[in-house]
Amino acid sequence: LRVAVVKNILDANSRIAQENRKLFDKLGLTVINLMSSPGAGKTTLLEQMGKHFGGQLKIGVIEGDIQTTLDAERVAAAGLEAVQIETDGACHLDANMIAAAIDGADYADVDMLFIENVGNLVCTAGYDLGEHVRIVVLSTSEGDDKATKYPAIFQGSDAMVITKTDLKPHLNFNTDRITADLKRLQPDAAVFEVAALQGQGISDAADWLLAKRPHRK
Amino acid sequence: LRVAVVKNILDANSRIAQENRKLFDKLGLTVINLMSSPGAGKTTLLEQMGKHFGGQLKIGVIEGDIQTTLDAERVAAAGLEAVQIETDGACHLDANMIAAAIDGADYADVDMLFIENVGNLVCTAGYDLGEHVRIVVLSTSEGDDKATKYPAIFQGSDAMVITKTDLKPHLNFNTDRITADLKRLQPDAAVFEVAALQGQGISDAADWLLAKRPHRK
Repeated sequence: LRVAVVKNILDANSRIAQENRKLFDKLGLTVINLMSSPGAGKTTLLEQMGKHFGGQLKIGVIEGDIQTTLDAERVAAAGLEAVQIETDGACHLDANMIAAAIDGADYADVDMLFIENVGNLVCTAGYDLGEHVRIVVLSTSEGDDKATKYPAIFQGSDAMVITKTDLKPHLNFNTDRITADLKRLQPDAAVFEVAALQGQGISDAADWLLAKRPHRK
Repeated sequence: LRVAVVKNILDANSRIAQENRKLFDKLGLTVINLMSSPGAGKTTLLEQMGKHFGGQLKIGVIEGDIQTTLDAERVAAAGLEAVQIETDGACHLDANMIAAAIDGADYADVDMLFIENVGNLVCTAGYDLGEHVRIVVLSTSEGDDKATKYPAIFQGSDAMVITKTDLKPHLNFNTDRITADLKRLQPDAAVFEVAALQGQGISDAADWLLAKRPHRK
């Protein structure tokens, strides 16, 4: 019975995610789901993406947090349009929260919508939000064993962005090891390395995202 | 109805946690629940605690991971007795998993048992395992805004151990800010700063843990 209940919840989520995706497609909006542990650097990555695409593309952001609007304030200060979802304890976003957030919002002029998920390397993996691209963000400080220890999120991602590469001289982080572990789980995944505070590596990841935009208005 | 079901699960967990705690008390075993994001440094902290207490106390470890026995192998290599729980996807340990892990294990000679929870700053917070001491571990790399953004786990902890303080010169991490945020949530919480790989700060945290042992055999 318990399995059946969980399956129904996931079925319901998938159905709403498909509706979200249809709407995004109609709007010509490319939607990216950013997932990571707390503090991996998703918000800083967003600030830099906003800076990189400034003038070229209009970027929207949906911020998912358990509490506070700190991240939405940060990206708004960086000039990005942000909607905050406070999950009030829930450990991940789901498709229904996204449906509620986009209902009534005006995305007619927006080209690319980033959804920053709750900081959680486990629970976010199981929920399709209706996005086109899933990115797992991993900071060098977290260690190069994480793809093996938390496989679901890596297996389900189109790309891994390794952040805080400026800390590598002070850590034992082997990019080859985690890349090999990732490719075993998801052979097609792209890998990017960034030091976002220094703006390094942003353009490679941004170019890859641009190439994911087949449906222009 | 949904709220009622969740409440029953938590009630059942509390009941089993109380049984675990009774057994731990009978054994004169001090039990510590270590919680953090993935890669905050729980395992390295354990390795150093084992080294610190070596000869003085007998330390046991229960490792909680979604998959792999990597962490149990690491602490075993450091000379600690380790039992691995693989949660097979579950995002936190619960009291029943601990009851199963200690059933049949021989803790008669063990003084202190560390439970390393799954790397998750959200889901681990809600589940009493029967421990006497709850510690939230936060690495400097994760940022000093985490107590505000993930309040439940900080509010429920007896101490916060800030790890990777050797990285502070390369980060914008303000110990005063996160300590103030923590104290707002939990005025009695102790705060420790460690650079575990360098063995710095371990003895202060270890002394504090020793003082938590009123029930000696």
